[in-house]
Amino acid sequence: MNVKPIQIYDTTLRDGSQGEGVSFSLNDKLQIAKRLAETGIDFIEGGYPLSNEKDVAFFEQVREMDLGDAKVCAFGMTRRRGLKPEDDPGMQALVQAATPVITVVGKTWDYHATEVLRVSLEENLDMIGESVEFLAGHAEVIYDAEHFFDGYRANPEYALKTLRAAAVAGATVMALCDTNGGSLPEQIAEVTAVAIDSLKDFPQVTFGIHCHNDSELAVANSLAAVDAGATQVQGTINGIGERCGNVDLISVMANLALKKKGYSVLGGRGLQSLTELSRFVYETANLQWRGGQAFVGQSAFAHKGGMHVHAINKAASTYEHIDPSLVGNERRILVSELSGRSNIVAVATRHSIEDDRELQDKILAEVVRLENQGFQFENAGGSFDLLVKRIVGSFSPHFSPIKYRVVAGETSADEKDVYAEAILKIRVGDQDCFNAAEGHGPVNALDTALRETLLPFYPQLRDMYLIDYKVRVVDNGAGTAAGTRVNIESGDHKETWGTIGVSDNIIEASFQALIDSVEYKLHKDNVTPAT
Amino acid sequence: MNVKPIQIYDTTLRDGSQGEGVSFSLNDKLQIAKRLAETGIDFIEGGYPLSNEKDVAFFEQVREMDLGDAKVCAFGMTRRRGLKPEDDPGMQALVQAATPVITVVGKTWDYHATEVLRVSLEENLDMIGESVEFLAGHAEVIYDAEHFFDGYRANPEYALKTLRAAAVAGATVMALCDTNGGSLPEQIAEVTAVAIDSLKDFPQVTFGIHCHNDSELAVANSLAAVDAGATQVQGTINGIGERCGNVDLISVMANLALKKKGYSVLGGRGLQSLTELSRFVYETANLQWRGGQAFVGQSAFAHKGGMHVHAINKAASTYEHIDPSLVGNERRILVSELSGRSNIVAVATRHSIEDDRELQDKILAEVVRLENQGFQFENAGGSFDLLVKRIVGSFSPHFSPIKYRVVAGETSADEKDVYAEAILKIRVGDQDCFNAAEGHGPVNALDTALRETLLPFYPQLRDMYLIDYKVRVVDNGAGTAAGTRVNIESGDHKETWGTIGVSDNIIEASFQALIDSVEYKLHKDNVTPAT
Repeated sequence: MNVKPIQIYDTTLRDGSQGEGVSFSLNDKLQIAKRLAETGIDFIEGGYPLSNEKDVAFFEQVREMDLGDAKVCAFGMTRRRGLKPEDDPGMQALVQAATPVITVVGKTWDYHATEVLRVSLEENLDMIGESVEFLAGHAEVIYDAEHFFDGYRANPEYALKTLRAAAVAGATVMALCDTNGGSLPEQIAEVTAVAIDSLKDFPQVTFGIHCHNDSELAVANSLAAVDAGATQVQGTINGIGERCGNVDLISVMANLALKKKGYSVLGGRGLQSLTELSRFVYETANLQWRGGQAFVGQSAFAHKGGMHVHAINKAASTYEHIDPSLVGNERRILVSELSGRSNIVAVATRHSIEDDRELQDKILAEVVRLENQGFQFENAGGSFDLLVKRIVGSFSPHFSPIKYRVVAGETSADEKDVYAEAILKIRVGDQDCFNAAEGHGPVNALDTALRETLLPFYPQLRDMYLIDYKVRVVDNGAGTAAGTRVNIESGDHKETWGTIGVSDNIIEASFQALIDSVEYKLHKDNVTPAT
Repeated sequence: MNVKPIQIYDTTLRDGSQGEGVSFSLNDKLQIAKRLAETGIDFIEGGYPLSNEKDVAFFEQVREMDLGDAKVCAFGMTRRRGLKPEDDPGMQALVQAATPVITVVGKTWDYHATEVLRVSLEENLDMIGESVEFLAGHAEVIYDAEHFFDGYRANPEYALKTLRAAAVAGATVMALCDTNGGSLPEQIAEVTAVAIDSLKDFPQVTFGIHCHNDSELAVANSLAAVDAGATQVQGTINGIGERCGNVDLISVMANLALKKKGYSVLGGRGLQSLTELSRFVYETANLQWRGGQAFVGQSAFAHKGGMHVHAINKAASTYEHIDPSLVGNERRILVSELSGRSNIVAVATRHSIEDDRELQDKILAEVVRLENQGFQFENAGGSFDLLVKRIVGSFSPHFSPIKYRVVAGETSADEKDVYAEAILKIRVGDQDCFNAAEGHGPVNALDTALRETLLPFYPQLRDMYLIDYKVRVVDNGAGTAAGTRVNIESGDHKETWGTIGVSDNIIEASFQALIDSVEYKLHKDNVTPAT
């Protein structure tokens, strides 16, 4: 079967940075570019050199990096009205970026040209043609047709004219943009086919698709365009971007390579690095992972229902649409009230006790006992791992708590002085360590005191950080007297793990979860307990 | 133009609860059912009565609620092999749930029947037919065809036989399930059309579609099935559910009603309540909102790029695919956040300030200021009401906090003695009251001290109790040092109300929410402040 290569065009560093809460440093951008190139991404749009100094510096520095076959692209707009391209600062900035590819965006929608830009339809065509022609003298030019689908719906004839202007001027790729993310797959398919057909007298011109996710259809829309003949997909890693984001290239690549027939991506390399790439981008952008993200999310192959786990142990394809290792992800069996022996057995495999019925029964009994107290292990894989280690006998504590006390209060209602302090005594090896710390709240104070005390013994803890802290009342109906369940999510540069504590007292529950969090880190790193 | 009504079948309370980190209390489930019914959802799948006592209690209590036209469904599996339906505990549990609709799931995939269930293909058909026939004697029966699309790919003839068995036995809806979420829209469209055609001798039978989002195509897949003739869509609010989740019914409804032509949902009601419904479900499940969620996300109409904002001020359709108010959402310009206006206008009516633009503006400004600090008033109607009263000038405090301090700790790790104490000084009328209390945790101790101090002045407080206490990190990424948002739900014999507090310090945030909770009670009962 003939396989058609689809080019992947990443705009995480430009369109992705428009997302709410996203802000990349220069170093972030360079690191991400490197990862994208290693993954085999074809085009890396690095920024908009006219808009800020950071992007100018990016293009200077990225030239010194070895990005293999990946082509770096600079992004900009068509020239301003009334200026010659060579006099336009935006055009000059694009040329100075000295990239092998320049991507220039122009207006398709008649309404946008006349109402927002306040230029005539003819002038807009001139802006497109002259800009592309000027830039084509310096680099390969990709033409982004902004609002192509809205523009086509409003005035099909004019929309096609804008493409033709770019083609005549020498652009090699027409990227059709669903800028507002509002189109449906059938519309994308139809209009993409018409656009391709309208330029069949330019056989060297190929087509791209650039979708946003405002209708939660960006992946389907991108695939529909590929089926209609587009050979380049623009998007971002993890779908970050303005509003609801750009299309997630990870889902696009996985669907093209693993689901659809007849396409290849990344030059035929595997997709095993996608999970790591996804998490690297989240971490670099300091964004929360999306557990339910398709293919690469932490929950994407997580199983909770006992019957599902039972079935998977017999035949994985019953509840897994692909083998998770194809995208570098892993199956996770969650332990919860909905699960039974199957889940325990599945998790127990990691601890090499798959043949030990007795140990399995002990673990199951302990899980049931703790769940009756309000524990829930599905979000607390770290605590569960320690529980198994304790029962198996492979747990060796790195420290023992002796006592703690937290004090928190407010001294005056008018001039608020809110404070929190913790004192803590723990034994590490043969030393009794007593310490105190202030914090933003009592749990933070306790956490600080614990880390400060342990760091001299276990410098590995410098690499560990807390990601999330959640509190839930276990038994509703009793208000503040009810038991509280605290979940803490921690991470280091390699992985994240959840731990849990349950107590009537929120501080005690938090302390349990903190201790487990630290113990998990030290156990997984095989750190020898201090003596 | 003829408009075809599409039924919406919600399984948030059953399939949604399989999602990682999702755990509903009985009260959560009842509250969500009420909201779903108010929104106009056609079917509400409440749970799996065989699996746990909570779901049994749900079906008992939901019968006492007025859910208008919404039909509650109980979910279960076909009978076990070798048992008569009337002797099967699962079948009995379904009948005892006494719902107007029963949804029963059966196996489509030959491989699943023989390899996992270990039954012959004939026995599986008998299990489907006999189960549906038995249940149809008690309620309307919806048949969920598990793995329909995988099953059809493996053995099309057998897959269609399983549907026929359910139809012959009296099921009125065939819900075709893409259980693993791995199908592509073109596959869904083709196979759905074949399935419908295969039962054209059962004109009373209609078809549903049940998609999962493992390939990030669940919305497109659901729409493709509707275009192929399905008239019921199953899914969850916010797309919560196992692995990558079920299809998000919000995106499905919005696309069907606002984008596609020829369909209607929710009996033609508007979709204005969808944003509020989405947030209510997140808060009730204590899950983080997904800012970039299509249609209802906080970022869905948030604009960051300066040029986009400029264009939008000239013509909103340049960067907004729909008017956000159609789904109850709002435009947000990220430098000057505008969220909350709809709440303000709605609540303004209660305070008779609907014509006072100036007061409305003041309230809006205060809401914006507090939201920037991490407050969220969606689930804190009590605190919002007090905020409005303060600005309107109708707030008179019943007491003033002077200072408090809580101490919590553990004296020994071996023989755990966990304690919590609070001391509190408040002014009531012209008296300074100093009090102390022990508690199960620091917040409970503080709550107890506050109530004990106030009861002699305000005996009405004897009638007030706390229902729920939730804590959420406001700014992820900073672990225990991040701001915390505390939500308290309180009630008396007449109503329930939510209050909120935000602070770096969890104790301070809790204290704020406690104070609001008591003040709201005293204000709503028109209690004159002590002098």
